[in-house]
Amino acid sequence: MEKLDLLYEGKAKRVYKTSEEDLYWIEYKDDATAFNGEKKAQISGKGVLNNEISSILLTLLKEKGIENHLVKKLSATEQLVRQVEIIPIEVVVRNRAAGSFSKRLGVEEGNLLPKPIVEFYYKDDALGDPFINDDHIAILQLASPKELELIRETALKVNDILSAHLGERGITVVDFKLEFGKTRDGQVILADEISPDTCRFWDAKTNEKLDKDRFRRDLGNLIEAYQEIAKRLGGEIHV
Amino acid sequence: MEKLDLLYEGKAKRVYKTSEEDLYWIEYKDDATAFNGEKKAQISGKGVLNNEISSILLTLLKEKGIENHLVKKLSATEQLVRQVEIIPIEVVVRNRAAGSFSKRLGVEEGNLLPKPIVEFYYKDDALGDPFINDDHIAILQLASPKELELIRETALKVNDILSAHLGERGITVVDFKLEFGKTRDGQVILADEISPDTCRFWDAKTNEKLDKDRFRRDLGNLIEAYQEIAKRLGGEIHV
Ligand SMILES: Nc1ncnc2c1ncn2[C@@H]1O[C@H](COP(=O)(O)OP(=O)(O)O)[C@@H](O)[C@H]1O
Ligand SMILES: Nc1ncnc2c1ncn2[C@@H]1O[C@H](COP(=O)(O)OP(=O)(O)O)[C@@H](O)[C@H]1O
Ligand SMILES: [Mg+2]
Ligand SMILES: [Mg+2]
Repeated sequence: MEKLDLLYEGKAKRVYKTSEEDLYWIEYKDDATAFNGEKKAQISGKGVLNNEISSILLTLLKEKGIENHLVKKLSATEQLVRQVEIIPIEVVVRNRAAGSFSKRLGVEEGNLLPKPIVEFYYKDDALGDPFINDDHIAILQLASPKELELIRETALKVNDILSAHLGERGITVVDFKLEFGKTRDGQVILADEISPDTCRFWDAKTNEKLDKDRFRRDLGNLIEAYQEIAKRLGGEIHV
Repeated sequence: MEKLDLLYEGKAKRVYKTSEEDLYWIEYKDDATAFNGEKKAQISGKGVLNNEISSILLTLLKEKGIENHLVKKLSATEQLVRQVEIIPIEVVVRNRAAGSFSKRLGVEEGNLLPKPIVEFYYKDDALGDPFINDDHIAILQLASPKELELIRETALKVNDILSAHLGERGITVVDFKLEFGKTRDGQVILADEISPDTCRFWDAKTNEKLDKDRFRRDLGNLIEAYQEIAKRLGGEIHV
């Protein structure tokens, strides 16, 4: 397996072609961004920890029957993944009110929702990733109704698995964002990453934030928080 | 039938109790507001025209089988309606891209959508009427899933009826906003108003805007536009 040309560079990862057509080589970066790229920093060690955590969680999900793009962790910052055509929908699952949800709907941060909910955002940086509904997805042809139902159901299953696994380790899963993609043969599978960059994780006892909100809200000690998540998940890396 | 105490005053109408418990007396005002009340004006004749147009359209819908709150037009600016508990959801139907939809999703104003779409907004002035999805409606307990399905289906039927009726009169129905309410016996019926304040109506030939966008965008001649809608609908009032 060879790492070939850089295909695209996102805010958190670089994606390379490989000598195998169906496989991509992903590199986790130390870049932190928030508010659609307005706030930026380099945080040494973040790439290593996100790769570690994302690899652990995607492996867990695979074991529990959730098809996803992870083939294997290659190095401290690198993963081999299945190439997919990313469906441009950010799928958000929420168990508790937080962030934009709290602000938009006037629900206090931390409040437990009566049931987990799913939200879709149009993954489009130029438009600022607007919140959309099923009808928008249909007319923008982002996914078929059948694909969308599969995505919604899978997202809720992922939530059950993550909430149970992290709950047993003293971590509350407040909310998280998923991306799905289509393989060459048309199968819709989970892709991208699952890390403290893309989830809200709170210490179950203290409600201390162990995720990217430490960066968004200038709370400091981001690496210590990510390291704590990695440790509780059985990760072996220390940065 | 007597008009009793003022119950509440909204941005466009006053609602009074009557001597009959199940009936309200509505008075259409000349106030124009936009952008969540930030922009304001008095436009003489608007109340009369909106009452005229709304009465015509609610009567048409009743004839076509859409239960709604209109009992009868009482005077130039007044209607007698069934009292309902308003469901705090603004139901928007769109046939063409316009306004916030165009801006948020990057679709040029006027573009025909592949199918009519429905959007829900949480009717809450303090929160700025945020766009919401079915899950938000469930957890905020704004309507039951069954009620929501009825509302969605009714909104699309209203669209078919309005689009046909106005289409025959040279008016394109671009989009509109509906409100529904619950009667004392739990029936969900159409309420509020259907007027150029709550719809986007374009002249089918010239695409001239014949609705509140004339106020929002400072295009002038608002009363002439509303008068044109009233005239094409067979209204008899001249202001
Ligand atoms: N298996 C995959 N195949 C193809 N692209 C992927 C895969 N997994 C993730 N991506 C995409 O890689 C890009 C880089 O990731 P990231 O840096 O997180 O981007 P972004 O700036 O959009 O958040 C994103 O567009 C993401 O959707
Ligand atoms: N049949 C009805 N019964 C009770 N309330 C109604 C009925 N029809 C409309 N309303 C309510 O009357 C209020 C006044 O109308 P309006 O001036 O348009 O208010 P807003 O400022 O909310 O747009 C609104 O809250 C509307 O929902
Ligand atoms: Mg990303
Ligand atoms: Mg109103």
